[in-house]
Amino acid sequence: MDNLALMGGWALIAVAASLIAKAAGIDWLVFVASVVGIVPLAALIGEATEDLAVKLGPRVGGFLNATFANLPEVIISAFLILGGEIEVVKLAITGAIIGNLLLVLGASLLLGGLKYSEQTFNAKVAGMHTVSLVLAVVGLIMPTLFHSAAPNAPLRAGETVSVGVASTLMLVYLCSLLFSFKTHRDVLGIPVTGMQPRWSPAFATFLLAAAAGATALLSDFLVSSLQPAVDTLGLSKPFVGLILVPVVGNAAEHAGAIRLALRDQMDVAIEIAVGSSTQIALFVAPFLVFFSLVVGKPLNFFFSGFEIAAVGFSTAIVALISRDGRSDWLEGAQLLAAYAIIALSFFFIPG
Amino acid sequence: MDNLALMGGWALIAVAASLIAKAAGIDWLVFVASVVGIVPLAALIGEATEDLAVKLGPRVGGFLNATFANLPEVIISAFLILGGEIEVVKLAITGAIIGNLLLVLGASLLLGGLKYSEQTFNAKVAGMHTVSLVLAVVGLIMPTLFHSAAPNAPLRAGETVSVGVASTLMLVYLCSLLFSFKTHRDVLGIPVTGMQPRWSPAFATFLLAAAAGATALLSDFLVSSLQPAVDTLGLSKPFVGLILVPVVGNAAEHAGAIRLALRDQMDVAIEIAVGSSTQIALFVAPFLVFFSLVVGKPLNFFFSGFEIAAVGFSTAIVALISRDGRSDWLEGAQLLAAYAIIALSFFFIPG
Amino acid sequence: MDNLALMGGWALIAVAASLIAKAAGIDWLVFVASVVGIVPLAALIGEATEDLAVKLGPRVGGFLNATFANLPEVIISAFLILGGEIEVVKLAITGAIIGNLLLVLGASLLLGGLKYSEQTFNAKVAGMHTVSLVLAVVGLIMPTLFHSAAPNAPLRAGETVSVGVASTLMLVYLCSLLFSFKTHRDVLGIPVTGMQPRWSPAFATFLLAAAAGATALLSDFLVSSLQPAVDTLGLSKPFVGLILVPVVGNAAEHAGAIRLALRDQMDVAIEIAVGSSTQIALFVAPFLVFFSLVVGKPLNFFFSGFEIAAVGFSTAIVALISRDGRSDWLEGAQLLAAYAIIALSFFFIPG
Repeated sequence: MDNLALMGGWALIAVAASLIAKAAGIDWLVFVASVVGIVPLAALIGEATEDLAVKLGPRVGGFLNATFANLPEVIISAFLILGGEIEVVKLAITGAIIGNLLLVLGASLLLGGLKYSEQTFNAKVAGMHTVSLVLAVVGLIMPTLFHSAAPNAPLRAGETVSVGVASTLMLVYLCSLLFSFKTHRDVLGIPVTGMQPRWSPAFATFLLAAAAGATALLSDFLVSSLQPAVDTLGLSKPFVGLILVPVVGNAAEHAGAIRLALRDQMDVAIEIAVGSSTQIALFVAPFLVFFSLVVGKPLNFFFSGFEIAAVGFSTAIVALISRDGRSDWLEGAQLLAAYAIIALSFFFIPG
Repeated sequence: MDNLALMGGWALIAVAASLIAKAAGIDWLVFVASVVGIVPLAALIGEATEDLAVKLGPRVGGFLNATFANLPEVIISAFLILGGEIEVVKLAITGAIIGNLLLVLGASLLLGGLKYSEQTFNAKVAGMHTVSLVLAVVGLIMPTLFHSAAPNAPLRAGETVSVGVASTLMLVYLCSLLFSFKTHRDVLGIPVTGMQPRWSPAFATFLLAAAAGATALLSDFLVSSLQPAVDTLGLSKPFVGLILVPVVGNAAEHAGAIRLALRDQMDVAIEIAVGSSTQIALFVAPFLVFFSLVVGKPLNFFFSGFEIAAVGFSTAIVALISRDGRSDWLEGAQLLAAYAIIALSFFFIPG
Repeated sequence: MDNLALMGGWALIAVAASLIAKAAGIDWLVFVASVVGIVPLAALIGEATEDLAVKLGPRVGGFLNATFANLPEVIISAFLILGGEIEVVKLAITGAIIGNLLLVLGASLLLGGLKYSEQTFNAKVAGMHTVSLVLAVVGLIMPTLFHSAAPNAPLRAGETVSVGVASTLMLVYLCSLLFSFKTHRDVLGIPVTGMQPRWSPAFATFLLAAAAGATALLSDFLVSSLQPAVDTLGLSKPFVGLILVPVVGNAAEHAGAIRLALRDQMDVAIEIAVGSSTQIALFVAPFLVFFSLVVGKPLNFFFSGFEIAAVGFSTAIVALISRDGRSDWLEGAQLLAAYAIIALSFFFIPG
């Protein structure tokens, strides 16, 4: 309950600050307040979802958890699309994937590994996610190669390829849900946290709706103040898209995964970090493609070599590290180093 | 025997139809009849080879089986080279590799996995093939990078590199035959089907020769009617090369692998799918390079980024899926999704 | 002792020959004599280091061994930087990595595997190195993509990225030393050779210093005679950088790894081959970046697609081959084939 008060208070102050800054016309402050405010709201969305999931039982609850876990990213990205910031959305997708794979998982393995000499986890689950991620990389690279092989192809053809790829990835996502929660539940041994719901379903639903609504408001502010804030604060848009937005949207998961690693519950920690990446690649990104077409600001699947390499190498490192079902602090440090190298290169790209 | 009658009848009708269409000058019908006719002929080549292989014992027979399994692809590709359709040949090589790795293996794992919750196979054999495939990818990418790094290099230098790479790959192929059938037969445990030869060696040899001859005839027709048929039917050459030719040449293997997967004989199914890809990469492709030089229509080893990415990612996914020696339906679905994404992108590339 | 006399005599003759050729102004002979002379000097550096390492105990000695093992490469590369041959240095780094991974390891597995049907080694150690190598590939590719994404970025930005990447890689190197020699010594089971030191510490130190000094002299000669020698002997600089320099600098390690493989001590053989590559990628290359800035001839981390592909695929093949902790002769042949394909492509690139 303390946590709820803390998060709620933090969020309310940030919303208030962003409204005042908006009224005062101080764009960079609107931006900062929005960014700061999304952190606790994302945490609240996560907690309310989990609470509902516990009540709904492992199957429906697991599905709910898996589908709503990245709601903050979906909301922010949707507003970025509405604001026409297509390149930033692509970077935010890339950044959410590598942030989960390298930063969240890396910090979990490093800190968990400093406490326990060796930690074990279900290599089968990690392997399933890895294959899905390779598939996502194929989905990123093929339309891009199509684009470079046929730069003069009619725009419609490119869009058709993007929609086809998005549909295929989403189908794989549905298959993997079916696999995890229906046909192979026992094999995978979906981790059960054994926790009790803290709130009534009605209150949890209200909390979820309120937090999502406030996230939408702050996302709108974030997008409208993006350009002036970037100019004033000397940030580059690639940095905002790749690093800032994903870190803000994942801060709560980040903290949760580390907490679980410190309690040696590696299966849940890996599910949060790697599972979340898979979900973004196979569900959130395709969803945004469809959404973008509906609102008439098409998001295609043509990614830069940078973005493809970042996702591809993150996947390769995680595949190598997770194949033996054991982890240690050095593997965590290696993941963090990969993140540092990628972030560093992006940081210096002129905006 | 029924099977022989069915396949033989089907083939004869197709040959007759293609001859009539040829005489009538209806190019697209020549094309369609050739494509349709190659399917049963490829099946007959496969059955006659297997029959001879059983009689010749595991070593010589295994060698025979491994070398003649892709005879239909060799014949079609040889005629494509003679017809100057070098780009289509490259796509057909690429398509045969990814068709076996993704479509044939994917369908086998999916259908086998829907029947059995989990299937097991020899991870060691799959691993050996995977390394060979990575080698093939290196063989594809290095001359291509040479080409882009030194676009003005004399043509001879490029050809020398292609021949050198082809020779190296073929040497590795010979090594892997030596390994499989001589030095490490027991370790690998080459699967024995335990079947009896159905035909006399003389009849099997006759059948092999007749089917190969008819395949050559239809391949000649297919190549000469390719351009008009593409124009009339609204197909693109990339689609014909990457998808159509390999599917036609592999239809029988495809059916065979699925049948074996449904009987839970995964080792043979994987040998057909993955082993066939290795053979195309390390034996058929190098053979075609040599053949092309002899007939004076040089096939170099400069592939497009598309082709390299398709083979590279197919290899990566198969490597990940096969590393634990276990399979399930989701892995099959993931392989098929990768095929769908690649095929989709190619389908929309303008001809 | 015989070995010392042989190596010492060989080195002295080569130094004398290079001095005479220098005096006579015969550049290609200076080059050849330098190249020939570095081989025994590199061997002496290795032996003196090992001798000191034995005396200093496993921790400090292990650190010494790991840090000085590539001293010859460092000296040659430093002189190449001083001589402004930046592209050759990059190729020498690439060549040392792939030479160890493919040529040294390949020859060891092939020859060891011809004697023993199957050899085993610690898959955990190999896995640790593989992840480090993937990290190095990320470190190679990210600044290069930065460079191609922002070709007009100020030179300072590019240098900052290079320095940042180099620092990160070196940090990972320090972490892996800490891991190997401190926190997880028992898990990894660092192989102990159990040999006795042959020389007094004073003599070993003198030998190390003398051999290093002579290597520096010959490296200076090699670099100053490089351009005329390349012209006279019809070599290309890529060939000298990628193949010749690394083979010369690694000849002793090469022989050592094969000798160990023939005695079935695969853990030490792999440590020499794969560990050496990791060390070059994570320690030598970053060190050279810092050195190059100090001497005012900046070595950036922008590599060609060729170099990145060579290192990337070498890493992928080693990762696949080493994952099961078992090796056979075919795996050795596959590694050598990959080396042949890469070397062949480079050989024909016009200089």
